[in-house]
Amino acid sequence: MKLYTYWRSSAAWRVRIALNLKNLSYEHAPVHLVRGEQRSDAFRGINPNAVVPALELDDSRVLTQSLAIIEYLEERHPLPALLPADPPRRAEVRGAALLIACDIHPLNNLRVTEYLKGRLGHSQEEAVAWMQHWMRAGLEAYQRSIDSAGRFSFGDAPGLADLCLVPQLYNARRWGLDLAGLERLAAIDAAAAALPAFQAAAAAAQPDTEPV
Amino acid sequence: MKLYTYWRSSAAWRVRIALNLKNLSYEHAPVHLVRGEQRSDAFRGINPNAVVPALELDDSRVLTQSLAIIEYLEERHPLPALLPADPPRRAEVRGAALLIACDIHPLNNLRVTEYLKGRLGHSQEEAVAWMQHWMRAGLEAYQRSIDSAGRFSFGDAPGLADLCLVPQLYNARRWGLDLAGLERLAAIDAAAAALPAFQAAAAAAQPDTEPV
Repeated sequence: MKLYTYWRSSAAWRVRIALNLKNLSYEHAPVHLVRGEQRSDAFRGINPNAVVPALELDDSRVLTQSLAIIEYLEERHPLPALLPADPPRRAEVRGAALLIACDIHPLNNLRVTEYLKGRLGHSQEEAVAWMQHWMRAGLEAYQRSIDSAGRFSFGDAPGLADLCLVPQLYNARRWGLDLAGLERLAAIDAAAAALPAFQAAAAAAQPDTEPV
Repeated sequence: MKLYTYWRSSAAWRVRIALNLKNLSYEHAPVHLVRGEQRSDAFRGINPNAVVPALELDDSRVLTQSLAIIEYLEERHPLPALLPADPPRRAEVRGAALLIACDIHPLNNLRVTEYLKGRLGHSQEEAVAWMQHWMRAGLEAYQRSIDSAGRFSFGDAPGLADLCLVPQLYNARRWGLDLAGLERLAAIDAAAAALPAFQAAAAAAQPDTEPV
């Protein structure tokens, strides 16, 4: 399998964690988002939506959207499970993952801040305040949506929601979000950081990682 | 089951279609988004994220996030299926649904346009141009992501992706998006509009529908 990825993309990062947890090897195909490589004709031929991640299967089919890719990996390689077995519990885990994937992350994407700063003429400070606003509201809701105890968001093993949380917390710290009151999330992040699958998926550990 | 819903909410609308297609009865619990009822303490006790939909099960558990709710309905009531059986094909359908649910809809939500017009001082025209920008780019990518023929996005029966497409096209028309070049999507929308499950789920047919 070949993963089209970018070191700092939260969505690609989620898939990297899933691949690592399931011990699946893959080829890195970096797409430099800041240089705009995702908008090239070549990459649009792979993903018409011009975003990463995209996962090219060994039969050349291409899957897009991080959560669709992870559900595919879960169906094809069920263990270790990223979703519990009980349907309402699965819905809770998926709901928490989607809270990040739909209600936080898309608002803070590079293309969105580019629109705010470019077409709408906002300053970097205004763009950062925008990002912090959605991250804070979303992460507070996330913390109220998960189990009140446990090493991870739902139970003692990492699951789909944690795969979304960890890259989102990297972004939160990157953009200076005050994490006061979100100590449960910071504790989950620390538990994840102790696991090799999360370490190898981190922004700082990619073949295309750049000096910060 | 009780569905917390708002007549014009695209996300609630997706769940209404799924419930109808699977012939499941439910109680309507309207939450008036424009009046801000979703931000009341009472509703935050149901969904801490202060958005609709939320589905209260008969055992009082509450599920949130439209796609998590629909996956739950699919697991509990498999027929008619909203996802195909083959894993890569399931990923394609989920990927198209997520393209709308993550990359179009969250950017055009009421709370986002409220921020643009309130805190950032933009005009209604600028907010509409913003919405049109993300809808146009996303719908073009959606059209390139689905099957090139068939009554619906993937095959001749409605599926998860169509449940996301139909409310998004209502929004596109509401905000004056030029749909030139998106004729395949308009044809899918017309096929859906002929089905009672879609008719009963439409914004115009809800108990809380208001005159336009």
